[in-house]
Amino acid sequence: MPTDPIPRPTIYDVAQLAGVSKSLVSLVLRDAPHVSDVRREAVLAAIEELGYRPSPAASALASQRTRTVGVLIDDFHNPWFVELLAGLRSILDPAGYTASVADLQLEAASGRNPVDGFLAQHVDALVIAADPAEGTLDGVGAPIVVAGTREFGAAADAALVADVVAGDDALGARLATEHLIRLGHRSIGHLTGSSGPGAQRRRGYEEAMQAAGLDPLVFGERGGTSEADGYAAACALLDAHPGITGVVAANDVMAVGALAALRERGLTVPADVSVVGHDDSPLAAYRYLALTSVDGHSREVGAESARTLLARFEDPGMPPHRKLLEPSLVVRGSTAPPRA
Amino acid sequence: MPTDPIPRPTIYDVAQLAGVSKSLVSLVLRDAPHVSDVRREAVLAAIEELGYRPSPAASALASQRTRTVGVLIDDFHNPWFVELLAGLRSILDPAGYTASVADLQLEAASGRNPVDGFLAQHVDALVIAADPAEGTLDGVGAPIVVAGTREFGAAADAALVADVVAGDDALGARLATEHLIRLGHRSIGHLTGSSGPGAQRRRGYEEAMQAAGLDPLVFGERGGTSEADGYAAACALLDAHPGITGVVAANDVMAVGALAALRERGLTVPADVSVVGHDDSPLAAYRYLALTSVDGHSREVGAESARTLLARFEDPGMPPHRKLLEPSLVVRGSTAPPRA
Repeated sequence: MPTDPIPRPTIYDVAQLAGVSKSLVSLVLRDAPHVSDVRREAVLAAIEELGYRPSPAASALASQRTRTVGVLIDDFHNPWFVELLAGLRSILDPAGYTASVADLQLEAASGRNPVDGFLAQHVDALVIAADPAEGTLDGVGAPIVVAGTREFGAAADAALVADVVAGDDALGARLATEHLIRLGHRSIGHLTGSSGPGAQRRRGYEEAMQAAGLDPLVFGERGGTSEADGYAAACALLDAHPGITGVVAANDVMAVGALAALRERGLTVPADVSVVGHDDSPLAAYRYLALTSVDGHSREVGAESARTLLARFEDPGMPPHRKLLEPSLVVRGSTAPPRA
Repeated sequence: MPTDPIPRPTIYDVAQLAGVSKSLVSLVLRDAPHVSDVRREAVLAAIEELGYRPSPAASALASQRTRTVGVLIDDFHNPWFVELLAGLRSILDPAGYTASVADLQLEAASGRNPVDGFLAQHVDALVIAADPAEGTLDGVGAPIVVAGTREFGAAADAALVADVVAGDDALGARLATEHLIRLGHRSIGHLTGSSGPGAQRRRGYEEAMQAAGLDPLVFGERGGTSEADGYAAACALLDAHPGITGVVAANDVMAVGALAALRERGLTVPADVSVVGHDDSPLAAYRYLALTSVDGHSREVGAESARTLLARFEDPGMPPHRKLLEPSLVVRGSTAPPRA
């Protein structure tokens, strides 16, 4: 009403006239159950008397729950997230929730905050299965579960108020390294990357090496965690230590990069060099690769993350839930005792 | 107002009293620009006179655009979708749209219609980069772009009213097969699956073989298109035709399955047998696999799909847009002339 100088009545005016809270007006506007007839009548009478019209935006807010959960994964190229998502869905679906998935690498490439899209969708909660930059989660009003990693990089502050469900990355890398040591390997290198889970896995490798009295050989600390990064780190490792007989990679795609570096040098897997991946992603199970890999039980991490979210919806005040799931090692064809 | 027997006025009542269309009432309710003051005044006066209150649901509908596009991909395990999504995003992001991604395999496993989640999110449009079951798209009111496949399986009826942007799958498989023929191969098998794109690719392979006077050898017609399916089809092919020297796979993951079947039989790639994939997915570029593969230009398919959607938003009445993009062959280390 551009020509009408009288200000439009607001929801506060309705609440005041009806003698109820603003929230109760919202409840009536969205036809919520469990509002007494008396109070409903009072609100409707006040709305009529004031000629109040809820704005579309306010109504959208009032209808609240979209029953959608935003899931931020790291990179669609790295298939470790597939099982995590399946686990999430196994709990969210029966509860009537939809998962909306986005990829941190793509979002970051677009130059905007990777959770903005989710907030625009009015998601009820976020599952962060990635390691976003500092500040990314500032001001997010929805519940957050950090899934799959406990080291939360620069977003650690936000993690303080979030629930966390993770595989124990350090323990996983320790299992991988101890497997090679038990097979008889002494010269074992590690391919790492600059991510939060990468730091945990590096720590697990270093602990296992030190416990066995062996020197840690870490490469790739300044790089990423892609197949190309794994190839580059493995080349650096092999140039510096041509006699190594074991490689522990921070993830499966890096391990596949290492396979190429070894083959280029005429080294056979596992006869000359054993290789262990991490994540037990679909790649590791491909017969042609048959990677021994650390299973972080991503499906269970996903399912437990979803259960945590549902519990958080029920009881927003419950104390932060922190759970580390114990990983296990899946032994396939890429590891064997060193040549005698 | 449970005790009030007078029916609540509807948006139709408002439109009638104001002498305008229902759409114009919607426009006024969501404060849309480009409504003349005279008509806006008439609508607001009618709202006041009738005591009309938009329901929250109606308001949510009236506010309409969520600026979210639902993208249904086939299977997160098969990374061909990564580039398509990047292409979509390269156009949607600057236009202020968010992509919400779901996976047909996961959705189907949950037993519900795979697009229900998107409809619950009130997406503005759907991009279908998958081959959903018959009836899946029935009654979807939002614009649909079928991306990446022109053979639309059981959902073909819906495709009749949808825009389609696809790689030319048949031409792609023809390029792959002709590449092997040109290298000198005569005994070339094809690994297929039961999908829509699978049928197109099979046709391309068959056409190229027939044009060269060679017998098509097709395996896997009743199977899926996973790595395990590729392995099984390759085993069947090699059991029936142990002398083949070339394999054209319907996609890259099937090609990786074939690599394992060949290695198990002591056959070296490419010295004994050449293998071609399809999709030029991230897998194909891994140095360890180095698959010659058909590039369907998924990024451009994604970008063109997004441009089509934006054009469709501008002009809902525009005729269906059908575009087939020409694929190209990326030659890597998995193909070579047959042994002399």
